[in-house]
Amino acid sequence: MSEIPYKTYLNEDEMPKQWYNMRADMKNKPAPLLNPGTHQPMSVEELSGVFCTELAKQELNDTDPFIDIPDEILSFYKMYRPSPLVRAYCLEKALGTPAKIYYKFEGNNTSGSHKLNSAIAQAYYAKKQGLKGVTTETGAGQWGTALSMACAYLGLDCKVYMVKVSYEQKPFRREVMRTYGASVTPSPSPTTNIGKKILEEFPGTTGSLGCAISEAVEVATSTEGYRYVLGSVLNQVLLHQSIIGLEAKAAFDKLGVKPDVIIGCAGGGSNLGGLIAPFMGQKLRGEADYRFIAVEPASCPSFTRGKYAYDFCDTGKVCPLAKMYTLGSGFIPSANHAGGLRYHGMSSTLSQLYDDKLMEAVSVEQTSVFEAAQKFARTEGILPAPESSHAIKVAMDEAMKCKETGEAKTILFGLTGTGYFDMVAYQKFNDGEMTDYIPTDEGLAKSFATLPQM
Amino acid sequence: MSEIPYKTYLNEDEMPKQWYNMRADMKNKPAPLLNPGTHQPMSVEELSGVFCTELAKQELNDTDPFIDIPDEILSFYKMYRPSPLVRAYCLEKALGTPAKIYYKFEGNNTSGSHKLNSAIAQAYYAKKQGLKGVTTETGAGQWGTALSMACAYLGLDCKVYMVKVSYEQKPFRREVMRTYGASVTPSPSPTTNIGKKILEEFPGTTGSLGCAISEAVEVATSTEGYRYVLGSVLNQVLLHQSIIGLEAKAAFDKLGVKPDVIIGCAGGGSNLGGLIAPFMGQKLRGEADYRFIAVEPASCPSFTRGKYAYDFCDTGKVCPLAKMYTLGSGFIPSANHAGGLRYHGMSSTLSQLYDDKLMEAVSVEQTSVFEAAQKFARTEGILPAPESSHAIKVAMDEAMKCKETGEAKTILFGLTGTGYFDMVAYQKFNDGEMTDYIPTDEGLAKSFATLPQM
Repeated sequence: MSEIPYKTYLNEDEMPKQWYNMRADMKNKPAPLLNPGTHQPMSVEELSGVFCTELAKQELNDTDPFIDIPDEILSFYKMYRPSPLVRAYCLEKALGTPAKIYYKFEGNNTSGSHKLNSAIAQAYYAKKQGLKGVTTETGAGQWGTALSMACAYLGLDCKVYMVKVSYEQKPFRREVMRTYGASVTPSPSPTTNIGKKILEEFPGTTGSLGCAISEAVEVATSTEGYRYVLGSVLNQVLLHQSIIGLEAKAAFDKLGVKPDVIIGCAGGGSNLGGLIAPFMGQKLRGEADYRFIAVEPASCPSFTRGKYAYDFCDTGKVCPLAKMYTLGSGFIPSANHAGGLRYHGMSSTLSQLYDDKLMEAVSVEQTSVFEAAQKFARTEGILPAPESSHAIKVAMDEAMKCKETGEAKTILFGLTGTGYFDMVAYQKFNDGEMTDYIPTDEGLAKSFATLPQM
Repeated sequence: MSEIPYKTYLNEDEMPKQWYNMRADMKNKPAPLLNPGTHQPMSVEELSGVFCTELAKQELNDTDPFIDIPDEILSFYKMYRPSPLVRAYCLEKALGTPAKIYYKFEGNNTSGSHKLNSAIAQAYYAKKQGLKGVTTETGAGQWGTALSMACAYLGLDCKVYMVKVSYEQKPFRREVMRTYGASVTPSPSPTTNIGKKILEEFPGTTGSLGCAISEAVEVATSTEGYRYVLGSVLNQVLLHQSIIGLEAKAAFDKLGVKPDVIIGCAGGGSNLGGLIAPFMGQKLRGEADYRFIAVEPASCPSFTRGKYAYDFCDTGKVCPLAKMYTLGSGFIPSANHAGGLRYHGMSSTLSQLYDDKLMEAVSVEQTSVFEAAQKFARTEGILPAPESSHAIKVAMDEAMKCKETGEAKTILFGLTGTGYFDMVAYQKFNDGEMTDYIPTDEGLAKSFATLPQM
């Protein structure tokens, strides 16, 4: 057998031509989205007021296992994909572990993360429907950047509502979006009714993701020729992100390697859901077994301490209700929380898989995450995003367990992006000023009280 | 013939195993470095006080065309190389040109640029010599970041003198270096004699590259177990950077394509010298012909308006004298100058090739460079470094000439890096506040007056 290379790239003609829809193989389907007024399942027609029609169809499609990737999207993918499957030889050596560590690296594009995989798909369907533009929210800024890039490529208008605290603390993210021609508005803003209302109630607020979503949805549904797009949580997003796992699996098959453990960070679930998709498909069909581990911050622990219940997706309560592991839409992450992964809820699909015990979840504290990030940067040469570093931390933990037991397990984790726009957090860590925060049971009880009465 | 892919990667076993030393094939060799006191050519022994011995040998070696890349460096290269040779289909389409545009993209590593190719080589030889650490200067920060990464990998101490204005305006670059364990000192600083002297003479100074070089050299030559390393200008750096051109040529050969025009930005010449190396070798040996174009900022025009003369390499005048196209060591780039490419001189090797009319040079103004950068970002999906965007601008100009003449020329340019740490400059451009600056003849006369009397 020839040696495994550091990086395995598929050829362009080996790239997947279809996305994989995990739901088709799930025995227990994810619970449907509900109309917030009637509590009845949403139809394609109802969803089409908010989303492009084709995306509304994808959102509700839990029967077709494969969906063709349109040629125009494949062409765009070829600008920055296939992404490499990397064998972390240097990290293995530094840890002295018999484990074989691989990561699928999604950070080598200007958006800096995997978000571009779904951004181009959502922008494409909007363009195809003849729309003028799309609206969205962004927190850490990866999704907004990705969407700006996709819209610039297709000549589509792009309005981004950026959580105010990020808008102020991450001016460079904002400038990347502006370079791509997007308009960026700090949220809450006086440009929407919900924004005005929140500003009146909480004049000094620095905003939240849930509030920015409400503003973006309001603008999309009240402006001719616009729809709303979202970077995570939704089924359609997991579908598009399946390109990550499909490429990883094709590369492993080429190498003749089968991973034992697959690890991904989980905020809304877009990366994790995409990374595990084809492997979970095998598990669901009884063709192969894998351990799947979702990693979330201890400061925003939807899986490990949340409730599996129907909840609001946004602060303004204008969005459909989703059944998911959630901390309640009133949950506000601690101010010391660095990076993304701060959404109160979790993908419905992943929530069902977790409830069915088909995957595990762990939570980790942020100083240990940055320690892992620093070690990874110094050995593997990539400065990781704080989000991705949650997966690095647990991959290193699993590799160290192998060192104790002597097992040579094959570990795959998702390296979703780079940390170039997160240097404020790295500086805090470098200066020894980073702290950890775990919500109290009393605090969570308060946010659970914001769950809807069903 | 099969279609040219968007991205061509060599396999790891196809990567070059030797660097190529252009000087071996030059009929007119670059002029030797001179001892600043005696004006006699420097020997390996003399240079070894400043540089590692092996690097001093490489610096003076103008006879061996190929030098083996040590295995340890090859392993490090495999962490982030081979870099892709990209066919710019989307840019071609946007320009409507019959030209075929390719770029060699060196930005997909955390240092954000090609600088890592030489940083790991210089750090390796320092480690091999049993040194404790290295010192260097950095301006825009790409070189300092690259060196920090290489030193972290090898467990070598790294002291970076960062031009004060960059230290203050680019705190995030500084934090990346600190994450890699480097110590970063704003220059001029009270930690050196030359720094103290400059601070006394010019209390409010924001520093310059020439001054930071003097400080780094002083610390290296006065501290046991340390040597000085430099990211551009030197022959050894061009040698290491030949990996760029060698990979590009191997990829073109695989595709059965021969470029007609090869374009690179030129500050000290590290990228341009590396990109053109094997192609220039063919031209020098009469095996093939190419047009080579060096692109420099109109605000720092060493090639297009400089003198070909011996000059000081640093403000403190402690370094050897080099014969090069230069604006005089007293030249200070305008405060409105964005990005790197602000060194007063130019690689001796490239200077000789330019003087022998083996390559061309053009200068471009920065607003036109950022216009090209924006267009490139929106069509090719990569936010380019301002430095690299000089090459993009001229590649686009050449492609537009092809549109006029109907010629389907093949253009290669070097995309040296990404602009994630240059968002202050992009913001100025986005806000319409970027201005151009061209030095007056009177201004240049003053800086030429700082040339040494020989």
